[in-house]
Amino acid sequence: MRVCLVVEYDGTNYVGWQVQPNGISVQQVIEETFKNVFGEEIKLVASGRTDSGVHATAQHAHFDTNLTIDASRICYGLNSKLPKDIKIVKSFEVAQDFHARYNTKNKTYKYSVYTSEIERPLFERFAVRVNLGLNVDKMREGARLIEGEHDFISFCASGSSVKSTVRTVYKIDILTDDEKIDFVVEGNGFLYNMVRIIVGTLLELGYGKIGLEDISNALSGKNRSALGKTMPAKGLCLVAVRYLEEK
Amino acid sequence: MRVCLVVEYDGTNYVGWQVQPNGISVQQVIEETFKNVFGEEIKLVASGRTDSGVHATAQHAHFDTNLTIDASRICYGLNSKLPKDIKIVKSFEVAQDFHARYNTKNKTYKYSVYTSEIERPLFERFAVRVNLGLNVDKMREGARLIEGEHDFISFCASGSSVKSTVRTVYKIDILTDDEKIDFVVEGNGFLYNMVRIIVGTLLELGYGKIGLEDISNALSGKNRSALGKTMPAKGLCLVAVRYLEEK
Repeated sequence: MRVCLVVEYDGTNYVGWQVQPNGISVQQVIEETFKNVFGEEIKLVASGRTDSGVHATAQHAHFDTNLTIDASRICYGLNSKLPKDIKIVKSFEVAQDFHARYNTKNKTYKYSVYTSEIERPLFERFAVRVNLGLNVDKMREGARLIEGEHDFISFCASGSSVKSTVRTVYKIDILTDDEKIDFVVEGNGFLYNMVRIIVGTLLELGYGKIGLEDISNALSGKNRSALGKTMPAKGLCLVAVRYLEEK
Repeated sequence: MRVCLVVEYDGTNYVGWQVQPNGISVQQVIEETFKNVFGEEIKLVASGRTDSGVHATAQHAHFDTNLTIDASRICYGLNSKLPKDIKIVKSFEVAQDFHARYNTKNKTYKYSVYTSEIERPLFERFAVRVNLGLNVDKMREGARLIEGEHDFISFCASGSSVKSTVRTVYKIDILTDDEKIDFVVEGNGFLYNMVRIIVGTLLELGYGKIGLEDISNALSGKNRSALGKTMPAKGLCLVAVRYLEEK
């Protein structure tokens, strides 16, 4: 049968989702744990890679297995042997033609920053410190420009090779409390580092270092030069993946 | 001059605030960093000890120094050399008779739990997993009973020696969102493990394992047997300390 896992992980100590030669990946830990617990070698296919240091509350990955147990029980067996920073939220059987990457309809990432003059030990693990003085209303105006279907080549790290750089960003919510700002970005797909560059750009806008017209130009004129930097990995978390067959 | 520090720390990797023979304490790290940065040996006096694994966003500690620099600049020097999990939020000069422990008027602790059937990697560092099915309204009723001046001997870990076990709990706020519950407890002082036992007791009440009358009995009849367990250290955080001279 084909089984889908929903995976939460604190990415701090991993080289990312995908198996890499230079360190331990989340995928590798789950595959090895599965071997230990169920005695079978599996190959996980995720909704997409997450980079080194990126977190997830809802990474999705499928695999094929010869096990005949109830798929919903698989998470318990895995969780009993997985390390504290990787857990399976849910396991369930899916159709044999389900594909965790090809069937994605949309994904949601959350990027967290906190505003402070000093580093905050209790925030540093999952958020990035930024300076005071952000104009949140202005950032929300910028978010409205980025929403929609655009060629996001200006919001893509160089060196990536994809057929098309056109993507649709359905929504960018900017949620604030006293100290933290969460950028929640939902789209039908994301280019390499796209969320981290979007957030870097909105922050530049919030500090008044660039204007709304710079964002418009980047979205139309394909000019990346005026935009923000790529934000660090640790502020990023994959929080939702939706599939075509889901209502 | 006498200087007060406001200190934030992630207590995960420390044996607590106070210097201990069995590991590294927060106090020791700050004192050694001060020596390295300013070349002077100081002795910190905190508002109180925090146990191994307990966190703080607003621990207060004073010390005397012969430095003649602006006290407000001391935090920058320290922060440049302190590890990521300990930072000085603020440093300021205080009167020569200010005492970080004896002058405290009240303290506020936050205890964080999350409700989930599985361990959540993104919550595990600063909160404790509890099962679903809590009656939050009932816990709030219990909190109302605990508020006020009482003999809290039933809410005190055995083995502690204090003159009086009478304390005043000014307020217990129970803040909830989708997944987390924060117990914010403000009082004029706390017995050993008192907050962790209060939270354990309110959770037992929330699951219907004890009743409101058990809490009343414990507060009047000095019977601890029916009350909850001492909750783990990692959910606890010292979030505010107020002093007599403050408005």
